[in-house]
Amino acid sequence: MRIGVLSETRPGERRVALPPEAVSALCAAPDTTVTVQSGAGRHLYATDDDYRAAGAEIVDSAQQLASGSDVLAVVNPPELTVIAALPAGASLLGLLNPFQEAQAMLAARDHGVTAYALELVPRISRAQSVDALSSQALVAGYRAALVGAQLLPRFFPLFMTAAGTIPPARVLVLGAGVAGLQAIATARRLGAVVSGYDVRSAAADEVRSLGATFVELHLETQEGAGGYAKSQSADFAARQHAALAPYVAESDVVITTAAIPGRTAPLLVTEEMVAAMRPGSVVVDLAAQSGGNCALSKPGETGVFNGVSVWGGADVPSQLPVHASKLYGANISAFVALLRAGDMQDEILAGSRVTEGGRFVHEAVRNALAPG
Amino acid sequence: MRIGVLSETRPGERRVALPPEAVSALCAAPDTTVTVQSGAGRHLYATDDDYRAAGAEIVDSAQQLASGSDVLAVVNPPELTVIAALPAGASLLGLLNPFQEAQAMLAARDHGVTAYALELVPRISRAQSVDALSSQALVAGYRAALVGAQLLPRFFPLFMTAAGTIPPARVLVLGAGVAGLQAIATARRLGAVVSGYDVRSAAADEVRSLGATFVELHLETQEGAGGYAKSQSADFAARQHAALAPYVAESDVVITTAAIPGRTAPLLVTEEMVAAMRPGSVVVDLAAQSGGNCALSKPGETGVFNGVSVWGGADVPSQLPVHASKLYGANISAFVALLRAGDMQDEILAGSRVTEGGRFVHEAVRNALAPG
Repeated sequence: MRIGVLSETRPGERRVALPPEAVSALCAAPDTTVTVQSGAGRHLYATDDDYRAAGAEIVDSAQQLASGSDVLAVVNPPELTVIAALPAGASLLGLLNPFQEAQAMLAARDHGVTAYALELVPRISRAQSVDALSSQALVAGYRAALVGAQLLPRFFPLFMTAAGTIPPARVLVLGAGVAGLQAIATARRLGAVVSGYDVRSAAADEVRSLGATFVELHLETQEGAGGYAKSQSADFAARQHAALAPYVAESDVVITTAAIPGRTAPLLVTEEMVAAMRPGSVVVDLAAQSGGNCALSKPGETGVFNGVSVWGGADVPSQLPVHASKLYGANISAFVALLRAGDMQDEILAGSRVTEGGRFVHEAVRNALAPG
Repeated sequence: MRIGVLSETRPGERRVALPPEAVSALCAAPDTTVTVQSGAGRHLYATDDDYRAAGAEIVDSAQQLASGSDVLAVVNPPELTVIAALPAGASLLGLLNPFQEAQAMLAARDHGVTAYALELVPRISRAQSVDALSSQALVAGYRAALVGAQLLPRFFPLFMTAAGTIPPARVLVLGAGVAGLQAIATARRLGAVVSGYDVRSAAADEVRSLGATFVELHLETQEGAGGYAKSQSADFAARQHAALAPYVAESDVVITTAAIPGRTAPLLVTEEMVAAMRPGSVVVDLAAQSGGNCALSKPGETGVFNGVSVWGGADVPSQLPVHASKLYGANISAFVALLRAGDMQDEILAGSRVTEGGRFVHEAVRNALAPG
């Protein structure tokens, strides 16, 4: 098996699909070679020589890399010319974002590439080791809490000093998936008083297990498939906003992490709700790139509205490139092991396979991109 | 007593000497009025109306404010025209930095102002409530740990995930005064493995009480007056650098907090020591404005040297303006209470008094600024 590691080129992307330590483990397998595009590890301070020491060969050109790969490991969908350079039957493996990346998926189909989108991995226990959404959400959640602490003009922890007592900051986390739970844990570590909310009432115990208060809005639960929240009605959203508003208003920091895969993120914090926050408060929106949980967030920007800072996340896992890549590389390595095992009917492989043999083999993607 | 609160004008300064809640308490005392310069609380989102609600009168001009004040409360030394506007016999109270701010001190002397420099308050138990160096160092130390976490491309905490184990970051804190101890505590909260070093071996127990390892270099202790370190010889520094180098090289984050009041900060991290750190590591230098504990730090800038980020602190307490001002305001309020009590021989008042009745009354300042 010839594995290729692409140097990522999208603006803001600082991860690599396989860091040197993961390459080293892969090279130890029989009949396996790893080729890495020069500079692929630059944002994690991994040099070409580090990759060579791990057993990889280095090439300059992405097309040359692709043309010699049985499996091309990426973070983001590569450029169309790179997909076109892959041999027919080769596998492309990464966070391919298939519903939004129609051109890349069509190119994979047309060139006979077998594309695996890690977002589509079924959420079963055995798939945890290949669950890149979760590993990257862990990074994003940690980062979100740090950003909140950094933007707030107050302390997070309680202090009792000779100059008086400082009360702890109040942090509200909306969405209690992996990112939200990690934001809760990190804000708690820093000493804040933390509350968490999720439309899935099943999340309450997880929020409480981290020492946070679960915000109970007394709305009907919104449990969707695979442990994600389902899409919400306009009526539900209006009642939800009204019920959330007082909790948002009394918070020093609101961290929003609510995402529904393949869809626009739900609006949770309206412009009116931001206007009701105290000046100096902070909103950290991890969903800014998928439409935003906060009406005022813009990806990659920090706006100030009436004294309230609104931070819109962009490429948040890339802000911790060393460890985001380490976790992602472990996901990719585990996926490669499944490919090597060769059971193409394996639930994880079958569930995440988008294209194969010139066709869309994933029904939902086919319906979205090439209906009829 | 007529108390004036100046709007601070130095670049980077975001604190105010007395926030509204402190003004409210002062106004409750008999025969006390508080006048505040318009906009003084802008960086902590305290409006002129907030000050009015606390009982203060608002004036626009700094000179007008000064001319009607018995006590002028400031963070930094005011402009010379403001000092000149103070009535003879009025008190000027703040972090006046007397050894570096010769012009302001000479102006205070020449206009018959009684200047109190909070840096000169004797370090006795009773003085804790007026110890602004300590209250502001608490803010700076917390902030330094956050900055380290923010600049590091890795996690601080240990994680054991389905995608493998992330080891905790290694943080080394040099200087274990109030700022250093708070940096240690905050880095520990975030889950890092922390070590602390101080030339005063008396600091070892405090470092260990926070769950950090004390770095023992087996050099002679350097205990100076008032709990501060004393100035060091070149020979001591060379041996110290050699002994510290391996600890610095193995750290992910080095936070330096070593300051000797009124003197240039000791050099602790040389250019060679930075060069020996792993790319992606971080140096946070809280002493950058007083000469720097790290040879490469520049105040207010983040430089990258061979992949190592070096952050030079500038106006660090101002990065948490709400709580820095709250603590500082409590210090000022406690000092005003001593002035009101009227015992001019009080050890705290006498120790911090720089000028009075047209003369320098603080011996060390007089020797430095107006010898002979």
